[in-house]
Amino acid sequence: MKNKNISKIGEFGLIDIIKNKFINVRDDKNITANIGDDSFCFKSGKNNICITKDMLVEKVHFKKEWINPQQLGKKSIEVNVCDIAAMGNIVPKYIFIGLGFPPKTSEIFVNNLYKGFRKTCDKYKITIAGGDIVKSEKIIISVTLIGIGKQEIIKRNGANEGDLIGVTNTFGDAGAGITLLYKHGIKYKYNKAERYLISKQNNPKARLKEAWKISKYLTSLTDASDGLYVSVNILAKDSKKGAEINMNKIPISSNLKKVFEEDKKQLNFALFGAEDYELVFTVPNLKAKLLKKLIPEISYIGTINSSNEVRYFYNGKEQKIKYFGYKHL
Amino acid sequence: MKNKNISKIGEFGLIDIIKNKFINVRDDKNITANIGDDSFCFKSGKNNICITKDMLVEKVHFKKEWINPQQLGKKSIEVNVCDIAAMGNIVPKYIFIGLGFPPKTSEIFVNNLYKGFRKTCDKYKITIAGGDIVKSEKIIISVTLIGIGKQEIIKRNGANEGDLIGVTNTFGDAGAGITLLYKHGIKYKYNKAERYLISKQNNPKARLKEAWKISKYLTSLTDASDGLYVSVNILAKDSKKGAEINMNKIPISSNLKKVFEEDKKQLNFALFGAEDYELVFTVPNLKAKLLKKLIPEISYIGTINSSNEVRYFYNGKEQKIKYFGYKHL
Repeated sequence: MKNKNISKIGEFGLIDIIKNKFINVRDDKNITANIGDDSFCFKSGKNNICITKDMLVEKVHFKKEWINPQQLGKKSIEVNVCDIAAMGNIVPKYIFIGLGFPPKTSEIFVNNLYKGFRKTCDKYKITIAGGDIVKSEKIIISVTLIGIGKQEIIKRNGANEGDLIGVTNTFGDAGAGITLLYKHGIKYKYNKAERYLISKQNNPKARLKEAWKISKYLTSLTDASDGLYVSVNILAKDSKKGAEINMNKIPISSNLKKVFEEDKKQLNFALFGAEDYELVFTVPNLKAKLLKKLIPEISYIGTINSSNEVRYFYNGKEQKIKYFGYKHL
Repeated sequence: MKNKNISKIGEFGLIDIIKNKFINVRDDKNITANIGDDSFCFKSGKNNICITKDMLVEKVHFKKEWINPQQLGKKSIEVNVCDIAAMGNIVPKYIFIGLGFPPKTSEIFVNNLYKGFRKTCDKYKITIAGGDIVKSEKIIISVTLIGIGKQEIIKRNGANEGDLIGVTNTFGDAGAGITLLYKHGIKYKYNKAERYLISKQNNPKARLKEAWKISKYLTSLTDASDGLYVSVNILAKDSKKGAEINMNKIPISSNLKKVFEEDKKQLNFALFGAEDYELVFTVPNLKAKLLKKLIPEISYIGTINSSNEVRYFYNGKEQKIKYFGYKHL
């Protein structure tokens, strides 16, 4: 047997090994959303119980130098609330926080990290239900969040031909923010627009209330944690459909435009920058105006069609877009 | 503000900081077992949903040299099933496995680890519902297990005066096993009795069916992952009672007696060795015989009383027992 080490297989190869050989899909009629959706959900009585789990590792997902511990605590909760929001009308309720700390971690750091957890949990009325602390070489934050809802969940696979593809706000800021941090570090004298981008990277907000407002009208829904390109692909593929995206309609913040003037750069951040944590959804054309009334920040960036590919257009011309992602391992 | 690093505070100090300042206990009538029990449980319709979470870190909780990857995978699941068993008649259903791997980890290791996860999940009919893989310096296994049951859960705080304290099998083997590994490593030529002890350390089995059989008769219940001494203390303290333990009644395996001949050593392993994963419970005296019929391996080691201390007796004489624990950080 050939024994590669996993750095040569890469994260996606590894996930394939695991999915193909080891995921034991059972015939369980209570499961309403399975592995591969934003949360795993099952029915208990009239409730949908949704669970999401995320693990952040120092120097892989964050750098202590670039985000303060309170922000880090807040962000760890927000990104999980975002995965719950991506299931529709679900209320985040109980959270478990597993932590790994190097022994040299300061008490102040731990205190401020917990302040961040606490503030964000209180904001969403989430109960900190448990957790564990272990010794590790790098800081690890492993969060499991449980949400409960009485409505039907909105999955990634319900988009229909003719549905519009909508997003809840601008894209690209968070990716531009981390790019600035990579370039100049945290101590550089940033201007106001640049500080805005960095703040969008460090202080994400889950679109929970927005999800509650619009979910009953949606045919499919996900979040954009891995970038708009990935999200659109997921909704089209999981629904066994295709899509046309009008890149001129992708909303870009005025701050991103100020800092990176070139259109192409802005769109690259929007499509591949990741960590914007906006919702990406499909909605029947007839309901599109109503949604925009409910949430004025919504933009429609394209249409679902019956093909099996996602095509991108800019100023009316088709663009060849290639996935430009981030390799974890 | 004095800024200690957390190695000086210790794990219990750290947990105190966190519990006192940051756990946000809410008035949520659906919560049926809170932080501090073996699992966190809440009501959803007629169901009790129980969640347990455990994080294992290489060189802190296991050594790759001493346990093979398939055993490690199995053990990671068993210890969580054990926390679900400790709530009574709850069926483990959905599991989430978060993993951290150093990039140099071999594909064979990952494959065998997953085989272990898969085999144990299949044994209990648990669905692997999701997870994530991150890069880390040491191997990390973070498991979240969700169980569902229709019966009342059995907590740690229901023991009454006069109840007998029971255990489901022998104590001390797992602790003796790890002691052997510390002394001689894995490649040493162990005799049969020694191999048994090491196997009890590396291949624990959760007492799930046992919990299902007896739970309706119990007044309190926990597992013995941290050693019998800790478990008895928990049941007495949480129930606001005391206890008398007859150390002569603590069941010790014939293999442990063979390898460590001194009574005192055997009892030390039993009380403080940890990782036996047996159930420790209290039951009204009248039901004690019935339980022993249902599970012949059960032993009764003591009685709950109205004092607020746990006293230990050996050959009729009181023994002064001091907690001799393991410092994580």
